[in-house]
Amino acid sequence: MTFAPRPVATTDRPAVALYSDTLTLPSEAMKRAMFDAALGDEQAGLDPTVNELCRRVAALFGKEDAVFLPSGTMCNQIAMLVHCRPGDLVLAHEDAHVLAHEAAAGSALGGVLIGGLRGARGQFDSATLTGAIRARSRYAPIPRLLVIEQTSHLGGGSVWPLERLRDVAACARSNDMALHMDGARLMNGVISSGVSASDMARDFDSVWLCFSKGLGAPFGAVLAGSSEFIDVAWRWKQRLGGAMRQVGMYAAACIFALDHNVQRLVEDNANASRLAAGIADLPGLAVQQPDTNIVLFRTEGTGLTSAELRDRLAAEGVSVTAMDHFLGRAVTHMHVDRDGIDLAIGAFRKVLGAN
Amino acid sequence: MTFAPRPVATTDRPAVALYSDTLTLPSEAMKRAMFDAALGDEQAGLDPTVNELCRRVAALFGKEDAVFLPSGTMCNQIAMLVHCRPGDLVLAHEDAHVLAHEAAAGSALGGVLIGGLRGARGQFDSATLTGAIRARSRYAPIPRLLVIEQTSHLGGGSVWPLERLRDVAACARSNDMALHMDGARLMNGVISSGVSASDMARDFDSVWLCFSKGLGAPFGAVLAGSSEFIDVAWRWKQRLGGAMRQVGMYAAACIFALDHNVQRLVEDNANASRLAAGIADLPGLAVQQPDTNIVLFRTEGTGLTSAELRDRLAAEGVSVTAMDHFLGRAVTHMHVDRDGIDLAIGAFRKVLGAN
Amino acid sequence: MTFAPRPVATTDRPAVALYSDTLTLPSEAMKRAMFDAALGDEQAGLDPTVNELCRRVAALFGKEDAVFLPSGTMCNQIAMLVHCRPGDLVLAHEDAHVLAHEAAAGSALGGVLIGGLRGARGQFDSATLTGAIRARSRYAPIPRLLVIEQTSHLGGGSVWPLERLRDVAACARSNDMALHMDGARLMNGVISSGVSASDMARDFDSVWLCFSKGLGAPFGAVLAGSSEFIDVAWRWKQRLGGAMRQVGMYAAACIFALDHNVQRLVEDNANASRLAAGIADLPGLAVQQPDTNIVLFRTEGTGLTSAELRDRLAAEGVSVTAMDHFLGRAVTHMHVDRDGIDLAIGAFRKVLGAN
Amino acid sequence: MTFAPRPVATTDRPAVALYSDTLTLPSEAMKRAMFDAALGDEQAGLDPTVNELCRRVAALFGKEDAVFLPSGTMCNQIAMLVHCRPGDLVLAHEDAHVLAHEAAAGSALGGVLIGGLRGARGQFDSATLTGAIRARSRYAPIPRLLVIEQTSHLGGGSVWPLERLRDVAACARSNDMALHMDGARLMNGVISSGVSASDMARDFDSVWLCFSKGLGAPFGAVLAGSSEFIDVAWRWKQRLGGAMRQVGMYAAACIFALDHNVQRLVEDNANASRLAAGIADLPGLAVQQPDTNIVLFRTEGTGLTSAELRDRLAAEGVSVTAMDHFLGRAVTHMHVDRDGIDLAIGAFRKVLGAN
Repeated sequence: MTFAPRPVATTDRPAVALYSDTLTLPSEAMKRAMFDAALGDEQAGLDPTVNELCRRVAALFGKEDAVFLPSGTMCNQIAMLVHCRPGDLVLAHEDAHVLAHEAAAGSALGGVLIGGLRGARGQFDSATLTGAIRARSRYAPIPRLLVIEQTSHLGGGSVWPLERLRDVAACARSNDMALHMDGARLMNGVISSGVSASDMARDFDSVWLCFSKGLGAPFGAVLAGSSEFIDVAWRWKQRLGGAMRQVGMYAAACIFALDHNVQRLVEDNANASRLAAGIADLPGLAVQQPDTNIVLFRTEGTGLTSAELRDRLAAEGVSVTAMDHFLGRAVTHMHVDRDGIDLAIGAFRKVLGAN
Repeated sequence: MTFAPRPVATTDRPAVALYSDTLTLPSEAMKRAMFDAALGDEQAGLDPTVNELCRRVAALFGKEDAVFLPSGTMCNQIAMLVHCRPGDLVLAHEDAHVLAHEAAAGSALGGVLIGGLRGARGQFDSATLTGAIRARSRYAPIPRLLVIEQTSHLGGGSVWPLERLRDVAACARSNDMALHMDGARLMNGVISSGVSASDMARDFDSVWLCFSKGLGAPFGAVLAGSSEFIDVAWRWKQRLGGAMRQVGMYAAACIFALDHNVQRLVEDNANASRLAAGIADLPGLAVQQPDTNIVLFRTEGTGLTSAELRDRLAAEGVSVTAMDHFLGRAVTHMHVDRDGIDLAIGAFRKVLGAN
Repeated sequence: MTFAPRPVATTDRPAVALYSDTLTLPSEAMKRAMFDAALGDEQAGLDPTVNELCRRVAALFGKEDAVFLPSGTMCNQIAMLVHCRPGDLVLAHEDAHVLAHEAAAGSALGGVLIGGLRGARGQFDSATLTGAIRARSRYAPIPRLLVIEQTSHLGGGSVWPLERLRDVAACARSNDMALHMDGARLMNGVISSGVSASDMARDFDSVWLCFSKGLGAPFGAVLAGSSEFIDVAWRWKQRLGGAMRQVGMYAAACIFALDHNVQRLVEDNANASRLAAGIADLPGLAVQQPDTNIVLFRTEGTGLTSAELRDRLAAEGVSVTAMDHFLGRAVTHMHVDRDGIDLAIGAFRKVLGAN
Repeated sequence: MTFAPRPVATTDRPAVALYSDTLTLPSEAMKRAMFDAALGDEQAGLDPTVNELCRRVAALFGKEDAVFLPSGTMCNQIAMLVHCRPGDLVLAHEDAHVLAHEAAAGSALGGVLIGGLRGARGQFDSATLTGAIRARSRYAPIPRLLVIEQTSHLGGGSVWPLERLRDVAACARSNDMALHMDGARLMNGVISSGVSASDMARDFDSVWLCFSKGLGAPFGAVLAGSSEFIDVAWRWKQRLGGAMRQVGMYAAACIFALDHNVQRLVEDNANASRLAAGIADLPGLAVQQPDTNIVLFRTEGTGLTSAELRDRLAAEGVSVTAMDHFLGRAVTHMHVDRDGIDLAIGAFRKVLGAN
């Protein structure tokens, strides 16, 4: 297992903030859309803007229905609660959020065991999946759900290729497993790969999109699936405390993001590539070339821990995250443009002594 | 047990909407406050407006700390998860939300059994509580938490008198139970009784306030308690998916509500009294005189079910809720003024044949 | 809710031990049957004597299959785990073991809420059941399982009449509920009523029999149901730690009990009636006429608490149980014969001052 | 993760049964001890033989108290339920029973996540443990319990050396973790290593011994710990359905095993070594030299799967277990003597073509 502590954000705003794409603030235009949104009681199904957002996301993924939720974590939890019963086995990459970042919520709330699969860049193949599925017996939990994270956060924003998705999905299905896609940063992968969201989600029973990361909305995630799935999901949304009231304002921000902030992810992806290229030759620094907007680097060869490097970059006005002892992360997003990336590259080069 | 189904809201907006105080929409002034709010990453503790709201509510209740959550349901669930272990017994009035309206979430998520106490108007006394506490044995769950709902929703918005609160709290404490107050409509009770929120909450380990009912904000509830309680509560907020991002806009609406919408609850309470008085003499209708903003009435004597009465009132442009076969409910709030109440009284009188 | 603490047994063996029918010791003949039993690995399905016992009990109840378990509590827990999902509602009489004596295990292990129904002598009718079933909504748990205790322990060993069983079963079924019968002392009811075990169990998806109460075996209970039910039950038996090894010796005691100790329950039932009749006229003592082997009496009118009465009877060599402040219980079984009953009557009469 | 399916036992008794040490049958002498045992109600604390057994095991481990349970699985489950809260992290070797053989019961019943550690022969060191403990954060479960299996079953009965036990225990303790020892076959390790049970258990908060494996009793396990631990354990024993009645007969078998079957484990261990030595040179067979009574062998080099080898050995009257595709297992116990081992060696040699 990789144990990557989450970043502890700091209050002072750096000149170039690369510690996460969750820090984006709504633009004036987005806020105007929020201000003007039609509102109603979401919990009673009466918020027209929320309903419109859910229709949009369901269509995006080619699913029948969708539900608005406060966070991606709740999307993952509800998916496990609907697909599984206590004592079932959920399989996911060992670095997936559902195992590595959600504080064992799946076990705490739904009584499932989550088993971690290994593989490079947050991905695995069907052979690895097959190897993890034991013969049915009273001594083994039933493997009930496979979770795929598209893009893989701790895999450095890596995009699961469509062929691999199809392959592991077929393998899971042949083992009677349901399929769930954690699409926190899925649109970065869509923009990077040219594969549509609905093609990515085709084999999956449930899939969700986060709006408060690269898409730049302040709040929310939308979970999509069949009508029957969403119907049961609503019961758990109610139990978990995710049923809300007049949240059409935040739904309006999400709709705005779908209309205005998807195509521009091409810039974030390009900026990540530019950053990786700009620091790839630094002595001792091992940089992973990104598929999307996350640049991972290891510092073993530099003589610095990732925290030491982070602190020295901070002194230069650039914030990154120390993920574990020697692993660092920089994430691009709408508040950092190409000039900011060049500033960041300069800071890395200055700190690591290359000129 | 009383089994009161929740209202199914309808899309057509009635002239006088008395079916719930959850339907309020933010005013232009409130929306402007939202628009102008300073924002940050709530999950990282960096949203200044959320932090300000939490300080305000902690101070209101005389507690050390507080946390912003998407709903009152999540406040109740987190309180049970923090105070209890699986197999513990939670005691509450049988009509309290935690037992009657949250779909057994306490059992599903936290493994607690919730036992219902009886008593008039959603309240009980310490003798009833004592009677429910069995001798310690391996055959009985440990009674770990007492939940009080202030005001009691299904008790008709009844206000627990301070003396009774003190009495049951002392009884619970002497039995080593923790104390939690569901304060969904607590401010209606403060305005009605003149007892301060901090006096009401003094004996309680945790207490919360809902902002999307009478206070008129579109979203959110704040749960307060000791620093240690809030620290553990945050772990469960994260697990339940209640950790959010730039939600300062909604926190700004809550702060606005604290500043502008508390004193005006006097009107809602007065309107409920006016309504109750105006229909008290109708033949066959049994009307409960309200402490706050909820008017309960029973229709047995009228020859109509509550649903039939609801439908006839709807034809007159007045919406109320059929709670069960013969129980109806009208709730006053900021979108219904004194004229609206008089219209509603007229509709009741017309429908029930009194002139 | 009635809160009846379980008896605390004492080490000194009284001359006439009426505190429980769980105290019976295996006879020499039963022990010989145990000694001679064929054994194997029960967990692997290879203990022939266990298999024979399961066939016997399945046939007794007219079910397809059965499983041997360490206790009746485990039978109840497994039934809830198989029939329900977390957040479901189990309905039972408020005095049933599953609610009143199993330390909230159903909530702790399976996440269900258990709601208590009221009614005289541990029973209720279909109108009461109907009244407890709310309209389907996201705010209410789904009522998934009805549990009937035959005979009702805290109802004073009362026997559910076949007609009433059919009636509540039909009501439950029409509400899509599964049905489970806690048959801890079912054979006492069979002997008392002349209704067969299979007729009693006909409408129930699962049913179990305890062997360590009136039947006089030292250990075990057998849970019966459909093949599919038993298959899933085995997974939970394994998880709960109820899968055992060479337990054919104890199964042999159960088979011996089926062969030799069923018809003799007529004596226990008769002795209970004799005891009740012999103390019915005592001043201030309210005695419930028993259907089977449990005599309940209330002491309010005697000036003694049930514990005081218990202690005074103990001084006369007769042990009974103080259930709560004024409720006492005497249980007949194979170690107390008619002479013992007469001794007990004499003790009651001496203690309560009637001659 | 290694995914080793448990053996499916077959009904025909082989001449030399090496498939498990759980198949042992009680001897006549053991059965006589059972027949003569003093009995009482175990659930009420009144079975003198059970009480004696618990005292014996508590003393053996140097703990304050102990409790008799139907199985080792229940010992493990109760330990997790007492030491942990839902959402906590339990760490164990990935091949430990608690993770690999108990059908995710820890997650199902107690809501814990169980994380698997890697290392040769079912063991790991403190560096591996340290590597699995993440910085405290709201995104990570709290590591609450370390489970050590002594001996390690899937490690081939390997004995944790005392120094390594001390080392990982100190590491766990410094991380505020509790410690639990699964001692299913601990006495085999005591006999093999000369280290006492109490020395092995010293650093552990809870520890248990199984009596139905090498010790040859038909039923039961005893869990030991502090008085406080056992007190809470009893609540869970009750909830899980592990509270029993007159089980002194089976406790008597366990006492008999302590008196007569511990020293003789030296034979089982020696027989396992003899078997391993006798087949070590077979072409293509990789044999692990055993510490105790379990011989693991891999068949990749033989051209046979483990199931094929198992079937060919069965034809020669020798039963072994196919653990996974190429992994096989032979377990020695009291029903196989040195001659039986020589027969087994002969069968291996015949089947694998060496003479």
